[in-house]
Amino acid sequence: MAEKMDSLKDQCSIARASDLIGDGWTLLILRELFWGQTRFEQLTAKTGMASNVLATRLRKLLEAGIIEKTVVPEDGRRFDYALTKKGLDLFPVVMAVMAWGDKWAPGDAGPLIELRHRSCGKKTKPGLVCSACGEALTPSDLRPRVAAVYRPK
Amino acid sequence: MAEKMDSLKDQCSIARASDLIGDGWTLLILRELFWGQTRFEQLTAKTGMASNVLATRLRKLLEAGIIEKTVVPEDGRRFDYALTKKGLDLFPVVMAVMAWGDKWAPGDAGPLIELRHRSCGKKTKPGLVCSACGEALTPSDLRPRVAAVYRPK
Repeated sequence: MAEKMDSLKDQCSIARASDLIGDGWTLLILRELFWGQTRFEQLTAKTGMASNVLATRLRKLLEAGIIEKTVVPEDGRRFDYALTKKGLDLFPVVMAVMAWGDKWAPGDAGPLIELRHRSCGKKTKPGLVCSACGEALTPSDLRPRVAAVYRPK
Repeated sequence: MAEKMDSLKDQCSIARASDLIGDGWTLLILRELFWGQTRFEQLTAKTGMASNVLATRLRKLLEAGIIEKTVVPEDGRRFDYALTKKGLDLFPVVMAVMAWGDKWAPGDAGPLIELRHRSCGKKTKPGLVCSACGEALTPSDLRPRVAAVYRPK
């Protein structure tokens, strides 16, 4: 049973995802890419991280297929960085971290960034809902269960 | 202007939040606490992390007010760990990481854990919606802006 649990642990999406994104610096890079930065120098300036730290994280994100780089046409020695589809799908993670930070670890004068929903025009705090019925979700609303394929026969 | 940007960077909720939670191990601890584990031994067994790593992370979470510990009544040398209100508010973060992992880094036979919404009874993949109008959100739907209090006068 202990062995069974050990092998199941490795299948957990949270464990697998946090290998890739469970790192403070990486979240800051993702934040800047979502807000439209594309250049190495912009990313160092906006995140405050050292070039070597940024280079390591960008390489990891490239290898994981979360970002891609393209040569800047007007300067063949430089690159533009952008989120792939896989990277764009991290948007709810970044938004969830931001919403939590806005509430529990805001800036000295409150949240730094306000978000407005383009289509409805209102200020918004992205929230979590059930994909089936659309209701807001809290921890006690969900029943987690090991998927059938992983259950002992 | 560079100085202004430097000081603003420190006000970002994502930066502040990732100081606390931007760490793969911490996400795994939160996962287990959300799924109902309360004991040190359960947390090491379920996450596969070494005791000293777990102890360091638990101390950081206690200091940050994300978890609290209470003495186990029947054994005064042991503790139960539980999420505080601040910790419970991390639920959307853990769910967002899980949803992304389910899609982009699932287990060998697909996602390990299925979630069912207790009130509607259906399988669910928690999604992100606008708090004002309830519509699903994508990155391009949102317009970020530095809050008025932080803008140059």
